[in-house]
Amino acid sequence: MAILKEINPVKTYLGKLSHNTDLLEELTGFCISHNITLGRIDAVGAVQKARLAYYDQENKTYRFFTINRHLEITSLTGNITIKDGKPIVHVHITLADKKGNAFGGHLAEGTIVFACEVCIQVFQGETFKRGFDRTTGLPLWEMGE
Amino acid sequence: MAILKEINPVKTYLGKLSHNTDLLEELTGFCISHNITLGRIDAVGAVQKARLAYYDQENKTYRFFTINRHLEITSLTGNITIKDGKPIVHVHITLADKKGNAFGGHLAEGTIVFACEVCIQVFQGETFKRGFDRTTGLPLWEMGE
Amino acid sequence: MAILKEINPVKTYLGKLSHNTDLLEELTGFCISHNITLGRIDAVGAVQKARLAYYDQENKTYRFFTINRHLEITSLTGNITIKDGKPIVHVHITLADKKGNAFGGHLAEGTIVFACEVCIQVFQGETFKRGFDRTTGLPLWEMGE
Repeated sequence: MAILKEINPVKTYLGKLSHNTDLLEELTGFCISHNITLGRIDAVGAVQKARLAYYDQENKTYRFFTINRHLEITSLTGNITIKDGKPIVHVHITLADKKGNAFGGHLAEGTIVFACEVCIQVFQGETFKRGFDRTTGLPLWEMGE
Repeated sequence: MAILKEINPVKTYLGKLSHNTDLLEELTGFCISHNITLGRIDAVGAVQKARLAYYDQENKTYRFFTINRHLEITSLTGNITIKDGKPIVHVHITLADKKGNAFGGHLAEGTIVFACEVCIQVFQGETFKRGFDRTTGLPLWEMGE
Repeated sequence: MAILKEINPVKTYLGKLSHNTDLLEELTGFCISHNITLGRIDAVGAVQKARLAYYDQENKTYRFFTINRHLEITSLTGNITIKDGKPIVHVHITLADKKGNAFGGHLAEGTIVFACEVCIQVFQGETFKRGFDRTTGLPLWEMGE
């Protein structure tokens, strides 16, 4: 089943992140300071190193790993909703190295910005709150199902 | 030449797909049941296995293949238009395995959702109908060119 | 720091690029001919060959390379702003080969379209002009920081 709710775009932001900052922390910080509790995010740019996670579906736990190289961000997509009463940025990222080989995963803290151009669409409407989902072990949206 | 028509965003949906469903079938089913005939789609999440296609440009035929592993969805992008009078979801997907290595292609039926968060933008305006394109062998939009 | 400015979506385009054209030149040409100076872009499709760039962060220079194969476009994301008084399209791309292996980088001229479906969102608001950034060596947005 697809449980999608109608929401309304109310605002759009475009801009950049400072060099040498933590990619996920900057995105989260911006959403908190601008009171963004529902939205969609995408970005391109480059990182000095990446820290990603892969969700181990069998053991229901994230496996974190670091790619200690300079990489292009070829895509970054995700959303902003609420967890434990605060905005949470959930984004996945695809990266490429100097040979063009691509890598990716769930963006974790520890990914350092070289340059990054970000677009955030802010929505209004249904509240999307993350709560523990027993089937997957993930903090998924509680949508009254 | 770039043949792009102006269209108007009229509605946005955000939500999730159920665990253990077929990713492409769920997206298509939602569009059919909500009468979405023109739109843009993106998603992040994870799959239990992926079935993708690569278009063989020389022989003008899709080559289907399965990646029988648990993978992160690092990007999913595409559109909803009309083919044979019905909504058709055309999306491409990028995936990453536990080592972070990335894979991708044209999303085919047989890709099983572990968890998936989807955003659909519904448009109004020009009708985009897919018809057989002789040059590529693909069902491309007939745009009066 | 995240320096993001509020902008307003004013128009959306959806359509396709002609077979056998240069992907980046077509996108840029469309933006110039339609006077698009601020926007967001995404696309899916396939290319006959790809010419990409990786930014060498140490030596502050782009390293260009060509992938001389038929590839799926699994994601293309980026933006349109102003450089030297003219619209500049800055997009990153992820591609996949017949085995599903993914590649990516900064899209350069020399990438030849097989088929490509494009969505462009046009914005109004703050002017985003690119100027030389000493720290990175890149033409980044001058945002009054």
